[in-house]
Amino acid sequence: MTRFVVIGGDAAGMSAAAQSTRGATAPDVVVFERGVHTSYAACGLPYYVGGLVPDADQLVARSPEEHRARGIDVRIRHEVVGIDTDARSVVVRDLADGRERTEPYDHLLVATGAVPLRPPWPGVDAPGVFGLHSIPEATAILDAVRARDPRRAAVVGAGYIGLEIAEAFERLGLDVTVVERLDQPMTTLDPDMAARVATGMSDLGVDLRLGTTVDGMVVGDDGWVRAVATDAGEVPADIVVLGLGVRPNAALAEAAGIPVGPTGGIVTDARMATPVEGVWAAGDCAQSLHRVTGAPAAIALGTHANKQGRVVGTNVSGGHARFPGYIGTAVTKVGPVEVGRTGLTEREAAAAGFDAVAATIEGASRSHYYPDAAPMAVKVVAERRGGRMLGAQIVGGADAAKRIDALAVGVWNEMSVDAFTQLDLGYAPPFAPVWDPILIAARTTARHTG
Amino acid sequence: MTRFVVIGGDAAGMSAAAQSTRGATAPDVVVFERGVHTSYAACGLPYYVGGLVPDADQLVARSPEEHRARGIDVRIRHEVVGIDTDARSVVVRDLADGRERTEPYDHLLVATGAVPLRPPWPGVDAPGVFGLHSIPEATAILDAVRARDPRRAAVVGAGYIGLEIAEAFERLGLDVTVVERLDQPMTTLDPDMAARVATGMSDLGVDLRLGTTVDGMVVGDDGWVRAVATDAGEVPADIVVLGLGVRPNAALAEAAGIPVGPTGGIVTDARMATPVEGVWAAGDCAQSLHRVTGAPAAIALGTHANKQGRVVGTNVSGGHARFPGYIGTAVTKVGPVEVGRTGLTEREAAAAGFDAVAATIEGASRSHYYPDAAPMAVKVVAERRGGRMLGAQIVGGADAAKRIDALAVGVWNEMSVDAFTQLDLGYAPPFAPVWDPILIAARTTARHTG
Repeated sequence: MTRFVVIGGDAAGMSAAAQSTRGATAPDVVVFERGVHTSYAACGLPYYVGGLVPDADQLVARSPEEHRARGIDVRIRHEVVGIDTDARSVVVRDLADGRERTEPYDHLLVATGAVPLRPPWPGVDAPGVFGLHSIPEATAILDAVRARDPRRAAVVGAGYIGLEIAEAFERLGLDVTVVERLDQPMTTLDPDMAARVATGMSDLGVDLRLGTTVDGMVVGDDGWVRAVATDAGEVPADIVVLGLGVRPNAALAEAAGIPVGPTGGIVTDARMATPVEGVWAAGDCAQSLHRVTGAPAAIALGTHANKQGRVVGTNVSGGHARFPGYIGTAVTKVGPVEVGRTGLTEREAAAAGFDAVAATIEGASRSHYYPDAAPMAVKVVAERRGGRMLGAQIVGGADAAKRIDALAVGVWNEMSVDAFTQLDLGYAPPFAPVWDPILIAARTTARHTG
Repeated sequence: MTRFVVIGGDAAGMSAAAQSTRGATAPDVVVFERGVHTSYAACGLPYYVGGLVPDADQLVARSPEEHRARGIDVRIRHEVVGIDTDARSVVVRDLADGRERTEPYDHLLVATGAVPLRPPWPGVDAPGVFGLHSIPEATAILDAVRARDPRRAAVVGAGYIGLEIAEAFERLGLDVTVVERLDQPMTTLDPDMAARVATGMSDLGVDLRLGTTVDGMVVGDDGWVRAVATDAGEVPADIVVLGLGVRPNAALAEAAGIPVGPTGGIVTDARMATPVEGVWAAGDCAQSLHRVTGAPAAIALGTHANKQGRVVGTNVSGGHARFPGYIGTAVTKVGPVEVGRTGLTEREAAAAGFDAVAATIEGASRSHYYPDAAPMAVKVVAERRGGRMLGAQIVGGADAAKRIDALAVGVWNEMSVDAFTQLDLGYAPPFAPVWDPILIAARTTARHTG
């Protein structure tokens, strides 16, 4: 029996481990996880902080005990500190007693996830300044809220995590300021669409400070943070959360000579194999292909981690599976404002060398006469010649965000905007106008193609 | 300038008329409509009856006056009673004075819509028995409700219209019985999925009588309907609505020698041209291609009428457009139960000669830990060999129905269930579990393909 060693017990690692046990030649599986949780939903952390998820245990899809009951040898509080790809072994430190031992492998999966960005600002390590990338960090924020009853919260960064944290703090009744270096929130949207998100944040009561650079944290006499220092003055805050995004956690792999690509992620092929024999990578630490640009990309999202892990689990147990790449589909919400995006923005398309056109339309979620039809803006980006759909963005009210899925399937299949316009989509007054906004957006963009 | 005559001023006819005015060689357009409304939303009628749409005028997307202001000569209360395809003219009766005159055309669009099914049952024409296919019929129902304060309503037929009428009467506080000849509601679903709809109707308080054949209407001493006579006894009712569906209204075309196909709809090609030179057909009266079976089909739905009308409008004004066919996507709701379907059911696939497999899974609309995740069942049908996705059905709570769109784009593009499983769809806890139910359904079906 072959031995399959997995480094990291979250989405990618545990998906791979579980899938490998179902294969024709199921290996012996051992998973080393340096924390205490397995398979937890990092994406759920802002909702736990905001009180929508009452108990952190609910975020754990499957505990180490549950995995063990299914035949997966999960060792928590075990950190892999070295990989020897020649000897096919890893050095594992038991965090309980600090002892290290060497463990052999036939197949090794590096699923070490991502590292939160945390600039070396003065005061960034002060009490009261938090990240939000793990259950202990979320619990620490809630403990601080309970213990100190803060009134003002500052969030640094207006990307997905920043927005979701801002919403959580609003829900807790705090005055929330979001500080963002760039002149728009959500750089995964074009500026015109991002402006709608900014309006939504303001409507929610969030004080959004765009184009504002953080210089550091200001610490009070009690040693606790009391403000964020910026180039536009101090933003007073009783609690600060950094929502600056993540980068692939590839240091361990890199130290072992496993190639890391331009994205900072571990280089993989479509089978999620690294260039080193017997070594695989999956999840936030890995680099894969962007299907629209054809260029490498590293997108930290649970869906990809799960899919890539599954691919590895299949490939190490006698099967053949491929990860066909991503197209950057994402959805989120801030208060009542829903956001969806897929493929390339107009800006990204230009940067990738496409001669792209785009159109934005205003539509509604339901027939105009049906109650509670919510407005939405839909932008579709396409190649000028031939009209291949390159991407789409939606910002609107209820039932806006998940409309991105139909557009994503169109982008995935390289449909032209003209062909997309003719699609047979679901229509009834409670669900859509007779021309769904996404069809009108495609049709409007098609006018600029030829 | 050529002359474009349109018979019928609803979705297909007015879309064609409006589109033709935008073409390179815009024709003179005249539309003959025997009623008084143009461009009204028949699909909205049940919501008007149920009180969700307070005013029937809201259902009119564009009035005759508004069309005239845009250069379209709309003549309401004008019925076309004959077509001479050799002379290229139509005979039009002015319903105001009964006078007829002959009008020439270069291009003629037959957009005569559909005829509600109305079996010749005893008593079917009695007062208190209604159809629901026009604004006057809807108004007549509401007048009867106001005048007679009925307690019990009976609906004949458990298809889309029947369900929507049942919901409307529930909303008005009536006791509702739905009588259906077959042993399931919604024959556009497989029996297992339809059973979930039946449960939803019962939960809503609807008394659903399946496998029950109507013999006629029982009329009271006052001449007003008092019950529906069935093979399982009388169903007392103070008001009865027939929701038996429609058939193409092709009699006028057929009388003029314009070919009608096996579906009862007027034969068209992809340009929506009939086999008779200069004559086009669009909307509920026309037959088009079903993309999955490759066979002719006639699907009465506003989306197709709009698209087909637009195609004709383009083609008569110097452009080139095609209607690429339908795949039978539909959504509806009954109370809190949402329904979506696309492509072929398992039963339809077998009838069309496919060696099909299917799987049904139970999923949820959101991450399990996020509040108000609604359950949904998703069924995916695929060809056994190669796994080409043939169709899908969804029955569930909030946010279930419109998930059918992504599946519809998959069916449209002839994706395999295996490829579909790998799609990059929108994920965030408020919007989906990390594996969206539609992906799990495709994956589960893929296990039966090869």
